[in-house]
Amino acid sequence: MAIPAAALDPLISELRALLGERLSTSKAVRQQHGKDESFHDVAAPDAVAFAGSTEEVAGIVALCARFRTPVIAYGTGTSLEGHVQALHGGVCIDVSRMNEILQINAEDLDCRVQAGVTRKQLNNHLRDSGLFFPIDPGADASLGGMAATRASGTNAVRYGTMRENVLGLTVVLADGRIVRTGGRARKSAAGYDLTRMFVGSEGTLGVITEIQLRLYGIPEAISSAVCSFPTLEGAVKTVTQAIQMGIPVARIELLDEVQMDAINRYSALSYAAQPTLFFEFHGSENGVREQAELVGEIAAELGGGDFQWASRPEDRSRLWQARHDAYYAAMALRPGCKGWATDVCVPISELTRCLLETRKDIDASGIQAPIVSHAGDGNFHLVFLVDTDDADEMARASGVNERMVARALAAGGTCSGEHGVGYGKIEFLKAEHGEAVSVMRQIKTALDPDNIMNPGKIL
Amino acid sequence: MAIPAAALDPLISELRALLGERLSTSKAVRQQHGKDESFHDVAAPDAVAFAGSTEEVAGIVALCARFRTPVIAYGTGTSLEGHVQALHGGVCIDVSRMNEILQINAEDLDCRVQAGVTRKQLNNHLRDSGLFFPIDPGADASLGGMAATRASGTNAVRYGTMRENVLGLTVVLADGRIVRTGGRARKSAAGYDLTRMFVGSEGTLGVITEIQLRLYGIPEAISSAVCSFPTLEGAVKTVTQAIQMGIPVARIELLDEVQMDAINRYSALSYAAQPTLFFEFHGSENGVREQAELVGEIAAELGGGDFQWASRPEDRSRLWQARHDAYYAAMALRPGCKGWATDVCVPISELTRCLLETRKDIDASGIQAPIVSHAGDGNFHLVFLVDTDDADEMARASGVNERMVARALAAGGTCSGEHGVGYGKIEFLKAEHGEAVSVMRQIKTALDPDNIMNPGKIL
Repeated sequence: MAIPAAALDPLISELRALLGERLSTSKAVRQQHGKDESFHDVAAPDAVAFAGSTEEVAGIVALCARFRTPVIAYGTGTSLEGHVQALHGGVCIDVSRMNEILQINAEDLDCRVQAGVTRKQLNNHLRDSGLFFPIDPGADASLGGMAATRASGTNAVRYGTMRENVLGLTVVLADGRIVRTGGRARKSAAGYDLTRMFVGSEGTLGVITEIQLRLYGIPEAISSAVCSFPTLEGAVKTVTQAIQMGIPVARIELLDEVQMDAINRYSALSYAAQPTLFFEFHGSENGVREQAELVGEIAAELGGGDFQWASRPEDRSRLWQARHDAYYAAMALRPGCKGWATDVCVPISELTRCLLETRKDIDASGIQAPIVSHAGDGNFHLVFLVDTDDADEMARASGVNERMVARALAAGGTCSGEHGVGYGKIEFLKAEHGEAVSVMRQIKTALDPDNIMNPGKIL
Repeated sequence: MAIPAAALDPLISELRALLGERLSTSKAVRQQHGKDESFHDVAAPDAVAFAGSTEEVAGIVALCARFRTPVIAYGTGTSLEGHVQALHGGVCIDVSRMNEILQINAEDLDCRVQAGVTRKQLNNHLRDSGLFFPIDPGADASLGGMAATRASGTNAVRYGTMRENVLGLTVVLADGRIVRTGGRARKSAAGYDLTRMFVGSEGTLGVITEIQLRLYGIPEAISSAVCSFPTLEGAVKTVTQAIQMGIPVARIELLDEVQMDAINRYSALSYAAQPTLFFEFHGSENGVREQAELVGEIAAELGGGDFQWASRPEDRSRLWQARHDAYYAAMALRPGCKGWATDVCVPISELTRCLLETRKDIDASGIQAPIVSHAGDGNFHLVFLVDTDDADEMARASGVNERMVARALAAGGTCSGEHGVGYGKIEFLKAEHGEAVSVMRQIKTALDPDNIMNPGKIL
C-alpha cells in the first residue's frame, strides 16, 4: 500500500507551507529515517518533518489524517524491532529538535521534558541537582522513544521500567487532537490509565510529544562489582537467590562467556571469559556494605570468584559503559555481520533452565550469539551475529529464536521484555496474548480508524 | 433508564436456569448489593447473581448483553464512591464466592487469586510462607474490587498501588468473551498494557475474575513508631523532607488532631490529640535502625515529640488497626451521621499548603471533618461527618470539597488518589483530564458499545 508519488504532492505542499525547510524529501534523509538499529531492511518514508512543538506535530498529523497518509514518529532511531520503518510510506515526524527540558521539580522528584530529550541529556542537566533518571537502554535514546517502546535497561530491577516512571504524557492523536494524560501526583485513581496505554504503544495510537517523569535522589553510596563464575548455572542461581531474599540490588547483569570475550576485545578489558555478573548497590554507606556482603556470600556458595570492586565514579562509568557497549562489542566479533537482538523475559525461577536450554540450542545451530541478561528481571537477550543475505543462516537463527520464545511463553514469560513488538514480533504477540490481541485491535480501531499511526506495527 | 420488570422476566428466567438458587431477586439481597460504604443512596439491582467461576461470569454477561441489561460487579461492597450502585438497574454479579487462591509462586514472588479473595484472606494464607501482599485499603476488600478501583492504602509509599502490583488479569468483556492480560514476567514490552487499562476501570470495561499479583518477602525487621507534633506544618514537613531525602520508609501516615481524638475514643487509646505521624520501617535490623534515626532527627528539628515505638507484632497490629479504623472512629464522633470520605492527592511539595488551607476551610464551614493522610504519597482524606438529609450542611460540605479538589488540581494533583471516580466525581474527572476524557469515552464505546458495564460510572 505504498503511496503513489502524485497522490502525495498536495500533502507535501501543505507540509512545506507549514514547515518550510524543516520538511525534507531528500533521499539521504528519508533513508536515514527509514531504519533503526535492528537488522530489518530500510523502509524509507516519503518525507521527513522536523517538528518544533506539540502544536506543530498536531498540525502535521492533522494534515496526514486529511490525506490518510501514514505518520511515523522518530526520536533517535535506536529501536530494535523495526519500529520506525515506514512500511507503507508516509511522513516521518522527527522530534529530535524538541529537546527542551521544560521543568525540574526537585522537591517532588519529577520533571517534564519534550520527547526529543535523550536520557543522557537529562542526566547531564540533572548533574548538579543530586537527582538522576535511572532508565538506561543501551543507546542514548530519546525519552519519547523510550516511553513509546516501554524501555527499561539495567536499573529496572530496583527502579522499574518506563511503565513505572512515566507520570504523564502529552500525546497527539490520529486526528490531530492534543491530549494530556496523568499528572504530577504519585498515584491517582481518576479514570482509565491512559498514560500506561500510550506507554509501549510504539506510535500506533498517537505521537508522544512531552513526558512527565519520576526522578530519584542520587544515593549516598554507590558501589559496583564484577564476579565471574565457572558455570552459567552458578551465576543465575546467585541472581535468583538475591532477588528471592529481597536484597534491593540496583543492577544485576549477567553476561555469558561469549559476551565477556567480546567485551574484553572491544573495550580493552581483561575480565575472565566466564559467565559474569555485574552488580550495583545503591543506598546508605552501611546499606550498600550490607547488601554487598549478603550477595557476596550467596555468590561464594555458588562457586563465584572474588568480587572486583569499583567505587570511584570513573571506574564505575567504565564498567557500565562496557556493559552498555555489549551490543556493539558483540557485533565486532564478526566484522561485517548484522546484529539481531532477541528479547524474552521469564519468571526468575525459570531463568536458569531457559538460559541453559537456549545456550545449548545456539551452540547446536552453529551461529555465534552472545547472551546478556538483565538477570534480576528475568530478561535476556541473544545477539545473533548474522549475514542477513545468508538464507540458511537466517533460518537457523529464526529457529533458535522461535524455540526460545516458545520456551519463555510456556514458562509464563513474554516475547519482549523491553524492545517491543515492532513488526518482527507480531506473530509472537498473538501466541502470547491470544484473544487479548483482539482487544488491542479494538482500541487501535477506536483511536485510529484509518490506521495512519505507524501502520503495520504491533498489530 | 431503569428497566421495566416485564422486560427483565426472560433474562431472569435464563439466569435462573444457569444459576439455580445462586440467583436472587429478594429485596433484602438486592438492597444489600445496591450500596457501598459511601453516603450515596441505595440503588438496588434487579437481581443478584452469585457467580462460581470465570466461565459462569462469562455466561451471565453474555445473557445480559443479549438483553442489553446493565452488569455491575460486586466484591465486598466496601468502595467509597458509589461504584456498585445499580443506577440503571440490571444484574449485580457477586464474586465473593470466587474466593480461591489459585497459585502461589514463592520463588517468583507472585500469586494468582480469584476476584473474591480478600486481602486479609490472602495474607492469612501466606502467613507461613515468609511472604506478604502489601496493599491495604481500610476495609478487608476483595482483590478484584481493589484492582477495579486501583486501590492503595498505607504501604503505597514503598510498595506502590494496585497499578504497580497487578501483573495480569482474567477479564470478562461486555460481550462475554474471556481474555487474559499480562503474564508472570516482571516486565514486558509486548503490546498495549491492557492490564493497567482494566486496573482502575471500575467495572466499566469488563468484570475482573482473576488477578496475578506481586508478593514481597516479609522484611527481616519491621518497626513502627508514632510521633506527635504541635503543628500540622511540622508534621507535613517531616514527611516531605523524609521523602525528598529518599529514605525508604514503608508507611508514613498523618492524622490530624480531630482524627487523633476520634481514634483515642474509638480504640481506647491515649495518644496526644495533636497532629501525629505513624511510621513503619522495613528492612534489615541495621537498615531499619538507620532509617528510624534519620527520620527521628528530621522530626525533632521540626518540633516532633519523642517516638513511641512498637516492634512486637501484636503492638504493631494494634497501632495499625487503630489507623485502619480511622473511618469508623471518625463516624463515631457524631453518632447517626454518615461519613463522606474525600480523596485528593497532590505533589508532595504542595501537601502542607493544601492541608492547611483545607483545614481552615473546614473550620470555617462549621462541619466536623477529621483529616487522615497517606502523607508519603501526598494523598489525603477528609471524612465529612454529615446528616445527608440536611441540605444546607451537604451544600457546605460540597463547597469545601469542591474548593479542595480545585486546589489539588491547580497544584498538579488529582481528584482521586485511591477511591476512584464512581458517580460522585464525574465532573471532577472532566476538570482534571479535559480532552483526555474523550479518549476514555472512545475506549469505553469500543469495548462496550451498548454501555452495559456498570453504566453511569467514571464517564
